[in-house]
Amino acid sequence: MSAFSRFTPLVSSLPSTIPFVGPEAIERQRGRSVKARIGANENGFGPAPSVLKAMSEAATGVWKYNDPENFDLKQALARHLGTAPENLAIGEGIDGLLGQIVRMVIEPGLPVVTSLGGYPTFNFHVAGHGGRLVTVPYVDDREDLDGLLAAVRQEDAPLVYFANPDNPIGSWWDADSVVAFAKALPETCLLVLDEAYGETAPAGTIPSIASLIDMPNVVRTRTFSKAYGLAGARVGYVISTPGTAQAFDKIRNHFGMNRIGTAAALAALADGDYLTEVLGNIAASRDRIAGIALKNGLQPLPSATNFVTIDCGRDAVFARAIIDRLMEDHGVFIRMPGVAPLNRCIRISTGPEADMALLEEALPKVIAAIGDKGQ
Amino acid sequence: MSAFSRFTPLVSSLPSTIPFVGPEAIERQRGRSVKARIGANENGFGPAPSVLKAMSEAATGVWKYNDPENFDLKQALARHLGTAPENLAIGEGIDGLLGQIVRMVIEPGLPVVTSLGGYPTFNFHVAGHGGRLVTVPYVDDREDLDGLLAAVRQEDAPLVYFANPDNPIGSWWDADSVVAFAKALPETCLLVLDEAYGETAPAGTIPSIASLIDMPNVVRTRTFSKAYGLAGARVGYVISTPGTAQAFDKIRNHFGMNRIGTAAALAALADGDYLTEVLGNIAASRDRIAGIALKNGLQPLPSATNFVTIDCGRDAVFARAIIDRLMEDHGVFIRMPGVAPLNRCIRISTGPEADMALLEEALPKVIAAIGDKGQ
Repeated sequence: MSAFSRFTPLVSSLPSTIPFVGPEAIERQRGRSVKARIGANENGFGPAPSVLKAMSEAATGVWKYNDPENFDLKQALARHLGTAPENLAIGEGIDGLLGQIVRMVIEPGLPVVTSLGGYPTFNFHVAGHGGRLVTVPYVDDREDLDGLLAAVRQEDAPLVYFANPDNPIGSWWDADSVVAFAKALPETCLLVLDEAYGETAPAGTIPSIASLIDMPNVVRTRTFSKAYGLAGARVGYVISTPGTAQAFDKIRNHFGMNRIGTAAALAALADGDYLTEVLGNIAASRDRIAGIALKNGLQPLPSATNFVTIDCGRDAVFARAIIDRLMEDHGVFIRMPGVAPLNRCIRISTGPEADMALLEEALPKVIAAIGDKGQ
Repeated sequence: MSAFSRFTPLVSSLPSTIPFVGPEAIERQRGRSVKARIGANENGFGPAPSVLKAMSEAATGVWKYNDPENFDLKQALARHLGTAPENLAIGEGIDGLLGQIVRMVIEPGLPVVTSLGGYPTFNFHVAGHGGRLVTVPYVDDREDLDGLLAAVRQEDAPLVYFANPDNPIGSWWDADSVVAFAKALPETCLLVLDEAYGETAPAGTIPSIASLIDMPNVVRTRTFSKAYGLAGARVGYVISTPGTAQAFDKIRNHFGMNRIGTAAALAALADGDYLTEVLGNIAASRDRIAGIALKNGLQPLPSATNFVTIDCGRDAVFARAIIDRLMEDHGVFIRMPGVAPLNRCIRISTGPEADMALLEEALPKVIAAIGDKGQ
């Protein structure tokens, strides 16, 4: 297949890998419709009616570019967070922001510390900029703060990624431990504190804004894709010092934000009642998933997120067989961690009761069908 | 202002410049509302009613990520263009795609050829990757194909940017000249043929798909932001060989496309009648702008785009004074080229009659108010 002959050596060396295969691709590959879409940690409870109304009202303005300074959204977020607009950078979801962060810090060969089995899209961006991944195994199904810190020090790494709550396990650290970790890092290491699932975490998990806001080497990433039910809107943001937040302006796609998604995010921020309602639904759905797992002899892990990761007690072949059969035979789309020992687990996103009912019906059939073959 | 201390030397050296100041920022700076938004080459005729309907129908699905493979949109575009889905890459507008293209080709110090006064956002991305801009002056208000070719050869440049039709002048080359230029380039130079304004150009301007589709060193960029009236939707695409198109998968933000914008693009492609109607409106508006210019003693330049660039016959100070007074006194937002000798001009986007009427009323007052001060 003929490609341009003079891409950079780095780009030429990269594989055409995709961090995640989407449910639509799975449908096409298998010729089967997804009936329960509970694999991508989306929020099937959906956005607020007030958000849908705001999107509809914004639609006729779609001929205009979005404000490249994202002024209104920064103002609203600053009020919501109790910080200043200068402490914020806006981007096309956390994935897009992670790409910018890696680009700002990493040159080929530089070490980047993350957890073994942590967020694959971060690793994708590290590879894309030629960084060298240094991975620290989970300990007791949690990211290992001491291990991450030791790896940063040993490698003199300029960048470390840590998600709290974690994905793909759903585990978490308390806020004090996170702050202590951030403060123990050398100032020459940028901490990406990914709080994509922050809204669904128990009280005491998320550090206060004030506790980290003066640290130029901490960027906290947040999103409207999870609790706010706006994955398709592509709105994420970063909280840091003004100097670090402003650095994004040097390289970001200034006209990259879409206008309807921005309107949706603004409306979502304004509807706290709906968020509270959805958080209740997510918590109830976590319990529902845990109950289904237990009824099938599987062990749900504690979760601070909008998904529940379930220890299936056997190997990755067994977990993979459950994933495949759920989709193949029942149209239930879920995912699993990609790396041992986490890949003994399956990961199921919370969602409406119809999805839960399908899961409840399908899972025992799938486990019975697999029998000992997956051992 | 405290920033992280260990950004890459390249990123540390970059200014926090923004390629364009948006009309919203101008409103905030001047405390004045934009009444006629005809400065950013948006399309005030707006998207089709069928597109608004499709966006509305897609809204409830905004909780889902968009298909990362953009399968449906690629299929529809391939049918529309008469090519294969494998020849396409989708991105968050041409601006986003330009950033990816530069990243794939440019390492610090490498030369990049473009026209002096050409698209600033391309230059922004070149600077962002440490490329060295080699600029070729316009000749007779057109990009200089021979000059661009000579510069590529002299510099052994791996990347050249050429827009047809051109922005900020609106001039164009015939398709045969463009194809001859592409074929004369060394295979080691990637041509970005930016066809953002292709739909509004006269017949014979845009090379056939077949004429360039086998050249791995040609990427044609297209957008839904102009003729289709979807600037705020952020949907652009690239046409190239399968090998070159697939290279985008190595680095792009796979979940970066928003779901409502994608639905809008699909619907827009399906509504050819509306496009025809809008193209008629744009052509009529070009004539209207030209007439207003002539009535005020200014010289409209020929345009193949959705804007008309007007030679004001004096210097940049005079042109800038017109821009400033139009906004300051009348709320009419237009722009101007940033570089001599093009900056003797002002640039006005086509738009609905209400905008044209405001312009017609304001322009003579502004010119009278400036008098000889701007000379």
